[in-house]
Amino acid sequence: MELSRRRLFGGLGLAGGAALVAGACGAPAAAPPAATVPFRGPHQAGIATDAQDRLAFAAYDVTTTDRAQLAAMLRTWSAAAEAMTAGAPVPGDSTGLQTPPADTGEAAGLGPARLTVTIGYGPSLFDGRFGLASRRPAALDPLPALPGEILDPARTGGDLCIQACSDDPVVAFHVVRNLARLGRGTVVTRWTQLGFGRTSSTGAGQETPRNLMGFKDGTRNLRSDDGAGFDQHVWVGGEEPQAWMRGGSYLVARRIRMFLETWDRDRLDDQQNVFGRVKGSGAPLTGKAEFDAPDFTAAGPTGTIIPDDAHMRLAAPENNGGLRILRRGYSFTDGTDPQTGDLDAGLFFVSYQNDPARFVTLQRKLGRSDALNEYIRHVGSGLFAVPAGLQGTAQWGDGLF
Amino acid sequence: MELSRRRLFGGLGLAGGAALVAGACGAPAAAPPAATVPFRGPHQAGIATDAQDRLAFAAYDVTTTDRAQLAAMLRTWSAAAEAMTAGAPVPGDSTGLQTPPADTGEAAGLGPARLTVTIGYGPSLFDGRFGLASRRPAALDPLPALPGEILDPARTGGDLCIQACSDDPVVAFHVVRNLARLGRGTVVTRWTQLGFGRTSSTGAGQETPRNLMGFKDGTRNLRSDDGAGFDQHVWVGGEEPQAWMRGGSYLVARRIRMFLETWDRDRLDDQQNVFGRVKGSGAPLTGKAEFDAPDFTAAGPTGTIIPDDAHMRLAAPENNGGLRILRRGYSFTDGTDPQTGDLDAGLFFVSYQNDPARFVTLQRKLGRSDALNEYIRHVGSGLFAVPAGLQGTAQWGDGLF
Repeated sequence: MELSRRRLFGGLGLAGGAALVAGACGAPAAAPPAATVPFRGPHQAGIATDAQDRLAFAAYDVTTTDRAQLAAMLRTWSAAAEAMTAGAPVPGDSTGLQTPPADTGEAAGLGPARLTVTIGYGPSLFDGRFGLASRRPAALDPLPALPGEILDPARTGGDLCIQACSDDPVVAFHVVRNLARLGRGTVVTRWTQLGFGRTSSTGAGQETPRNLMGFKDGTRNLRSDDGAGFDQHVWVGGEEPQAWMRGGSYLVARRIRMFLETWDRDRLDDQQNVFGRVKGSGAPLTGKAEFDAPDFTAAGPTGTIIPDDAHMRLAAPENNGGLRILRRGYSFTDGTDPQTGDLDAGLFFVSYQNDPARFVTLQRKLGRSDALNEYIRHVGSGLFAVPAGLQGTAQWGDGLF
Repeated sequence: MELSRRRLFGGLGLAGGAALVAGACGAPAAAPPAATVPFRGPHQAGIATDAQDRLAFAAYDVTTTDRAQLAAMLRTWSAAAEAMTAGAPVPGDSTGLQTPPADTGEAAGLGPARLTVTIGYGPSLFDGRFGLASRRPAALDPLPALPGEILDPARTGGDLCIQACSDDPVVAFHVVRNLARLGRGTVVTRWTQLGFGRTSSTGAGQETPRNLMGFKDGTRNLRSDDGAGFDQHVWVGGEEPQAWMRGGSYLVARRIRMFLETWDRDRLDDQQNVFGRVKGSGAPLTGKAEFDAPDFTAAGPTGTIIPDDAHMRLAAPENNGGLRILRRGYSFTDGTDPQTGDLDAGLFFVSYQNDPARFVTLQRKLGRSDALNEYIRHVGSGLFAVPAGLQGTAQWGDGLF
């Protein structure tokens, strides 16, 4: 852990027998960004953490049937995740010439850039292959079929997931790559997703990032400093029989394809009515500034100003008995659809809640009625139980096996 | 052009008739990065420009057979590219409620972040559909079949290309998206590629960025301040019969898939012998520091220290009669291969040279002998004539039509 990533190769010998002046090269003069997010705590990092700029998400399927092998891999992953979070390379020998380096090296010289690595367990992990059926959390039922979805099996499900978030995309990718490597023979990668959120590297520019439809996204989201809100809506509490899950959460991931070509042909007033917000300022259609409270009863010439099928109206806590979820999604752009030439882009929606039923309730409503449905489709899905954070010397999988 | 992107929606009216306090919301307090690269000049920006952090590249096929329509689109593209390069939205009405906004909006509030937009014309543009056969630049022959390639037609070719580079990925993507939109009915997107280079947002960290194999990449590249080198190797000169091409260059793009899972199992000394460099420092195997000149004759216990098939030896100008090209590529990570679960990642190689034969000569040699070939494959390809820069009031396509 003490070995910083920039020193990873500092002591490498020189092939051919010549001497290397250790540390003479490759070490930049300026200090790297020191931003490190603690790996250990009552909750896993990467949930209440202020959203980093970049996401690398992966779902894995377990291929072994050996329970002990799976438990050992989770411990190995845990140690690697903790090291990378601290800005160190994957533990092990990266300098011996006659073995493959323990760390793949592409992030050498980069700081941790607020890296967090968050693990989740899918419903299928508890299907009996590993004797874990009795450990299944109470609310971890597979998601039901939902309106508005046409799911691609190749982008859906998974026994395990890793959410790696960092302000540097290489640092996030490095995690997914190296965990897959450490898991070889135990897991295979089922699907991955890269995403981006805030992109202005100086912190200037957009205050609330805009989605690919050009609208600010996240104005009414739970704030990271709202501890009471997290306790009420996000963290699993004492009602959960599985001790390892108390203080955890449920992660729902949805790959939401946006039909941007269609959206871009829509009139501005229609676009604004779809969201219930002004595109430029982000204000509700009944207000002047982004954070003004919406007035869902205010009447205009042809009904309420915020239409009945506006996304904001349907999703608002005040119209759902106070129901809230933590949204922590990222935009994605994955090239073009080979059939149509259209952009394969949209929102990789990630939400955390203390019961997946919260998401199901919202999505049943949105999937039926949301004006936005003309322009989006849910094409991938994942549900994962996210255990509590690690404390003391615990590693991932402790409490499960 | 005077309208900054952050003001794009500043004057939007409010649906439902309420008044909007213009500029009250969404305008951040801090100034955005002011870095603007001039759009006009003797050469197009985005070639000698110091490489920005992010790439959005697109190849387009022309679908119209109407020469005037194509010429008009190029002028429209040119004006849009110039506006976006200056940090302004796509020209046109983005505030009228009853029409689709001229700009899609996702980059509103972001600065230009050193955006450059570079256009190129593929060999197929001169095939006679538009009466341009007589305008074909002398050296614009389609690339021959080359060793080491298994090309996917869906990632190869194109009548036109756009290279958008910026330090902000949304700003780069915004260009490709909006040009496709402006070109609807005239072109369709054939393929796109996103890439990343330097990723440390503070400028600290890695000095020479590392590729996904963990090695520093670009140590011996042409430097942007080497005007004589550019004149000799990159810019098309007076020998070119087409006036519009003098001061231009030829762009070669190659999607190079890296077999990272195989690479990661290789011993460190083998990895270093493949490149001819020390992984950590980036020094040649015969040197101590990254920028030390390699000694290709120095002998070790079993032959030359830098092996005969080392990538650096085969590509080095001193071993190719002084031949150099400007490399301006970006790493890519595009999820996983659905057949194998392996990462679909590698290098999107982009080079500029004053004759494509330079690239062909190098790739014939590398494709036959390079030790790296065990770990890479060229799976996509493009060749484009990149016209000279615009001066005065000229627009793209002037001189061509």
